[in-house]
Amino acid sequence: MSRGAPIPRNPENDYSNEQAGVRRDFIKAQTGAALDVVGQYAIDPAVTQGNIENFIGVVQMPLGLAGPLRIEGEHARGDFYVPMATTEGTLLASYSRGMRAISASGGVKTTVVKHSMQRAPVFMFEDALQAREFGVWLVREFEAIKAASETTTRSGKLFEIEQYPVANMLYTRFCYTTGDAAGQNMTSKATYAACEWIKANHPLQPRYILSGAIDTDKKHSAMNMIQTRGKRVIAEFTLKREVAHELLRVDPANLYRYRQIAAVGAFQAGSAYSGAHSANGLAALYIATGQDAANVAESHGGITYGQLLDNGDYYWSVTLPAVICATHGGGTGLPTQRECLELLGCYGTGKADKLAEIIAAVVLAGDVSLTSAILAGDWVSSHEALGRNR
Amino acid sequence: MSRGAPIPRNPENDYSNEQAGVRRDFIKAQTGAALDVVGQYAIDPAVTQGNIENFIGVVQMPLGLAGPLRIEGEHARGDFYVPMATTEGTLLASYSRGMRAISASGGVKTTVVKHSMQRAPVFMFEDALQAREFGVWLVREFEAIKAASETTTRSGKLFEIEQYPVANMLYTRFCYTTGDAAGQNMTSKATYAACEWIKANHPLQPRYILSGAIDTDKKHSAMNMIQTRGKRVIAEFTLKREVAHELLRVDPANLYRYRQIAAVGAFQAGSAYSGAHSANGLAALYIATGQDAANVAESHGGITYGQLLDNGDYYWSVTLPAVICATHGGGTGLPTQRECLELLGCYGTGKADKLAEIIAAVVLAGDVSLTSAILAGDWVSSHEALGRNR
Amino acid sequence: MSRGAPIPRNPENDYSNEQAGVRRDFIKAQTGAALDVVGQYAIDPAVTQGNIENFIGVVQMPLGLAGPLRIEGEHARGDFYVPMATTEGTLLASYSRGMRAISASGGVKTTVVKHSMQRAPVFMFEDALQAREFGVWLVREFEAIKAASETTTRSGKLFEIEQYPVANMLYTRFCYTTGDAAGQNMTSKATYAACEWIKANHPLQPRYILSGAIDTDKKHSAMNMIQTRGKRVIAEFTLKREVAHELLRVDPANLYRYRQIAAVGAFQAGSAYSGAHSANGLAALYIATGQDAANVAESHGGITYGQLLDNGDYYWSVTLPAVICATHGGGTGLPTQRECLELLGCYGTGKADKLAEIIAAVVLAGDVSLTSAILAGDWVSSHEALGRNR
Amino acid sequence: MSRGAPIPRNPENDYSNEQAGVRRDFIKAQTGAALDVVGQYAIDPAVTQGNIENFIGVVQMPLGLAGPLRIEGEHARGDFYVPMATTEGTLLASYSRGMRAISASGGVKTTVVKHSMQRAPVFMFEDALQAREFGVWLVREFEAIKAASETTTRSGKLFEIEQYPVANMLYTRFCYTTGDAAGQNMTSKATYAACEWIKANHPLQPRYILSGAIDTDKKHSAMNMIQTRGKRVIAEFTLKREVAHELLRVDPANLYRYRQIAAVGAFQAGSAYSGAHSANGLAALYIATGQDAANVAESHGGITYGQLLDNGDYYWSVTLPAVICATHGGGTGLPTQRECLELLGCYGTGKADKLAEIIAAVVLAGDVSLTSAILAGDWVSSHEALGRNR
Repeated sequence: MSRGAPIPRNPENDYSNEQAGVRRDFIKAQTGAALDVVGQYAIDPAVTQGNIENFIGVVQMPLGLAGPLRIEGEHARGDFYVPMATTEGTLLASYSRGMRAISASGGVKTTVVKHSMQRAPVFMFEDALQAREFGVWLVREFEAIKAASETTTRSGKLFEIEQYPVANMLYTRFCYTTGDAAGQNMTSKATYAACEWIKANHPLQPRYILSGAIDTDKKHSAMNMIQTRGKRVIAEFTLKREVAHELLRVDPANLYRYRQIAAVGAFQAGSAYSGAHSANGLAALYIATGQDAANVAESHGGITYGQLLDNGDYYWSVTLPAVICATHGGGTGLPTQRECLELLGCYGTGKADKLAEIIAAVVLAGDVSLTSAILAGDWVSSHEALGRNR
Repeated sequence: MSRGAPIPRNPENDYSNEQAGVRRDFIKAQTGAALDVVGQYAIDPAVTQGNIENFIGVVQMPLGLAGPLRIEGEHARGDFYVPMATTEGTLLASYSRGMRAISASGGVKTTVVKHSMQRAPVFMFEDALQAREFGVWLVREFEAIKAASETTTRSGKLFEIEQYPVANMLYTRFCYTTGDAAGQNMTSKATYAACEWIKANHPLQPRYILSGAIDTDKKHSAMNMIQTRGKRVIAEFTLKREVAHELLRVDPANLYRYRQIAAVGAFQAGSAYSGAHSANGLAALYIATGQDAANVAESHGGITYGQLLDNGDYYWSVTLPAVICATHGGGTGLPTQRECLELLGCYGTGKADKLAEIIAAVVLAGDVSLTSAILAGDWVSSHEALGRNR
Repeated sequence: MSRGAPIPRNPENDYSNEQAGVRRDFIKAQTGAALDVVGQYAIDPAVTQGNIENFIGVVQMPLGLAGPLRIEGEHARGDFYVPMATTEGTLLASYSRGMRAISASGGVKTTVVKHSMQRAPVFMFEDALQAREFGVWLVREFEAIKAASETTTRSGKLFEIEQYPVANMLYTRFCYTTGDAAGQNMTSKATYAACEWIKANHPLQPRYILSGAIDTDKKHSAMNMIQTRGKRVIAEFTLKREVAHELLRVDPANLYRYRQIAAVGAFQAGSAYSGAHSANGLAALYIATGQDAANVAESHGGITYGQLLDNGDYYWSVTLPAVICATHGGGTGLPTQRECLELLGCYGTGKADKLAEIIAAVVLAGDVSLTSAILAGDWVSSHEALGRNR
Repeated sequence: MSRGAPIPRNPENDYSNEQAGVRRDFIKAQTGAALDVVGQYAIDPAVTQGNIENFIGVVQMPLGLAGPLRIEGEHARGDFYVPMATTEGTLLASYSRGMRAISASGGVKTTVVKHSMQRAPVFMFEDALQAREFGVWLVREFEAIKAASETTTRSGKLFEIEQYPVANMLYTRFCYTTGDAAGQNMTSKATYAACEWIKANHPLQPRYILSGAIDTDKKHSAMNMIQTRGKRVIAEFTLKREVAHELLRVDPANLYRYRQIAAVGAFQAGSAYSGAHSANGLAALYIATGQDAANVAESHGGITYGQLLDNGDYYWSVTLPAVICATHGGGTGLPTQRECLELLGCYGTGKADKLAEIIAAVVLAGDVSLTSAILAGDWVSSHEALGRNR
């Protein structure tokens, strides 16, 4: 068989052990590469239908436990053991240390402050005036548009159409609450239905494209930071001075001084996140719990804020304006991922806000630990001890 | 056992099936959650030492095949079958379609145009003048500093110290080439050694902190977009007009018109990426090949550029200024991940640039497919057919 | 008199020729510098009260005429001669050329698409939950807050309070329409009144600071680009192919190709404006018409969008999301500035939108000329001929 | 005469009182608007040649004195009276108050830390590999290219060619020191000469465009913030606690707390400047001293950094990465502008760094005053007392 042959498919039983094996054999014939361990999975391939195509097996991503982390949120309350999937040595140990510091300080408060998932069609007109007038019409017809969009979904609710006129176009963002789903596909369908209704009902029958690129799906953006994408979540706690000394080997006054320096660094660099490292915790939790790991792109943006208190304690918070998470649909039902969600008490209906709170709390724990390590000088040495030399 | 108990550890055999089971039992006792499938892994826990702590099992992430993708790069040459790990339905199918369009158009050229991995210490002084003079000294003593840094690593080579004076501080970026490793830890150690040498040899013995936050590790930033982090990689091809029509059901002229609209959308939104969706391909490839999935945060930033040619074909490219990838160290040696690297011919020494080229090519394929789907109107319907309803 | 002596003031007649002379003499005594020409002004110092303190005379800024520029806006209609104050050689000539190209193509359409001027108080709470609940209260009490704010102003109308929760604070933007005034001071007073009402009426009597820095007054920001500051204005026209050839010596197809290159450059650079040079026209017009020249900082941000049409003409537009302009108050009543406004038919009540439209049209004319010059290769040579060698 | 008639020109004596009058009469005939005061200028129109075209008179911009401001810079040393041209009431009073606070605290240190003015040609190739190889050639041939560029200028010195490969292009920034000129035109000419040399000497004779838009001339950009445009200047001082109390009616501890809040606001908003208001001081000084007021766009970007000291004093600094200023050429020789430069001891050769230091010091003074006013609650009331109601 020459290189470049098409990957074998079998419409009858494409999601079967047999067909996965056919493809692994095909790869071996084509490239010489064995996929032996890839083929040793503990799940029924049939369950991956809707999650992947051309299934050949699984990647086995190491899973560890961090915690316990005491959370005093609206939805997440208690001491949580957090499953994190990663290949980066010291990550679990570091997050666990941050969780200990938080828990020993009395726990972390968490709050979801906004929900908004988007699809962002752009409408095209002859000139800017026509686009502006169309925008007025959109406001007037909002209830009918909302009704049209919601014919496609039970849980998606259109609550606003943001407008950004540029040139002879109206860029919009159709903003929804999406229940326990992440909602990217739900909002696509709902917005498509809304747009078709608009096209049928507006006298100009405006041309549109379903994404004008300001939904910034799977992309960090100023838009997301300002207008929210998914959930805007805040985690905050007060680090006790003695905990800082004993567990983290830093003084809050130094943490506060360093906050000035790091905030200036983040501003100078035009960084998406002004704290230490949101992406590590997000990626590890997203993978463990069946979230879309690509959403790390947008979710990792955020803002750190701290104040040294008069008693020497340190108020420390992180605000994440674009947390995308789900507790049903997508990868959440896959066996290992579901077990991780269940471990957190976050599987199924009515749990998405709880999961979002845990996510923000975990990100804060990671910042507590890494920031302290940078200051205490044990950052390099801990990687020496725990990590692979790279 | 009350909630909040510490996670069991056993210094003697912490990376063993037995100890992983102890922890899973602990979780069941604490939370009632079973981790049955998590515990059914095909790898020896011992191999995860250096990749994770508190190992309890694995997440089984579905793995599919995309391709073949014809690449005519400097390092990657041939028709590649690409392993992608994801839980997002239609992703593999969509990338495969893009790969077909590229291959049918003659393949994609790929080029790594810059290597630069950083650690970014900040040095503190009495005033800006002292900081500036220190900067002059850094330039003068570069060879000695380089030598000090390279005592800690064989493959890391310090080639530049960028300087960004702010207030009474000198923010720096120590820039290295790092061979086939991603290099974050390597550059930490090397820069720490360099800083200690500086402190011992500069008359002021300047105080420093190992990160002034302008390395923007695991964070998208303007700094990374401008100065490179990891590898700056370009993928480019010319989409043939007939391929566009037949495979993608779009006309290049429409792709070009939409490029104007999407570029304006990305600029209006302050988006990290001006194309369709780099993060999806990056996350799926990074997970499959044992890269650090958190690096999707920085790697997903990038620039799309297209031109309609006189013959009706369409030149299409993507430039990724912060691809972080490795072919040894980190998660690359884990059994399933290694198999995926081997399938690409990218495991081990001298392969990192090849892997970077494949990554950029895959990102381009994803943009080709999704952009076309948005225009051809089959975006929503394909999710209907292939994806889970969310 | 030793150096460092206080500048003379005279409460009785501080805005008088005599007192201005006293200060010029003082300067001569202190520094040896003569201010002879500064002292030769054609205005009554009394009219500058409210515009400046410690008046010593005037800067004589050269004023030239550009145009005529045909505008087919909502408010600005006709052929305009545009007064521009600058010291930069070739600027007037270049803008005039752009205006000729626009006029010869049939004129420019202009549209104000949004009005929104802000003051942005931040409110402080114990935790994020309290801040979020306060936000709910703000929405509920909007009419009362609006009434409180409008006790201080006739023309300012509060229409929205945007909310951005971060940590334990609620950052807000109080958004107003401000009639023919720029409105920075008006919105300060109105928002101060609103905040005092809030403090008196909310059970927590929340502490606040009148600016949490997200009004981004006199600063470019993503916030302004997305949410508008002042007026969001669009100018658009279709450059005829033959006009491009004859007047600008470029082909629209080349303009369009260059648009791709410049848009990528602007995106790569993280530029505030994706066209050629908004700030030149803005500064010259702002100075001539008594606007606050510092507002060039925020007004210069904007978006260029173009499309090559099937007939070879080129649709060209600029969208300016933060034009700050006034036709009464501030410097608009000063004698020379007022004359410039009158020349445009823009002095006094009901003229601010007309002025905003002219501003956007002028910015577009400047881009038409400079972009063409860059492509036609006469950019350097025209500076040779007309400008000072620098 | 119908509307739309061309503006009268007279090649023989276009820069004369007579011809200026002809144009004013023309305007009156065309529009009915009188330009009486505009025509009452104290300068010889002939001196404006090279600064403006179609001269009709002058705008009389009120000029006031602020200060004295004690500066302990490298180049600026002493107590300075600062001429500021503005139409914004309270601006002079506010800056003067900030200057008093600085002077009473012992003065401000100022340092120019980098010089770099650019023109940014983009070179076009068949593919990215060709572009990268061209970049290698640029480095190798740097001395010859430098020599070619410097044939056109005595004071401009090419010191670096930054490279940013995107797609099949090499975006570059040719970076110069420019002596006492701002240097935009100088660098255009020099870079044009360099590019022509390149085209003649590189085997591919690469096509280029003189600006690929990453010089971001007259535009704020991340590029300028990171890489410097013009001069990167730092001003810093320590505000004494008792001065803060007596002159500014704030406590340094509150300034420090507010710094956290404002820094977060600036980061949330994606603001170009993290302090209070650089643009006000820049615009007033630029207009007074014959700088290009359009450069406020790029110069206003900057970074504030503060630390509360153990003794209760407050270290306060501003870093401006893109100060564009000149002490000869452009508008600096115009009579009133020259007088303002002379008052500062900044006219002519060897003075540009001194002027840059004064500019940064003035910006810092403005921030000291406005920030304190926001906190002390006298911001609104001072505008009431001193400003025009708008």
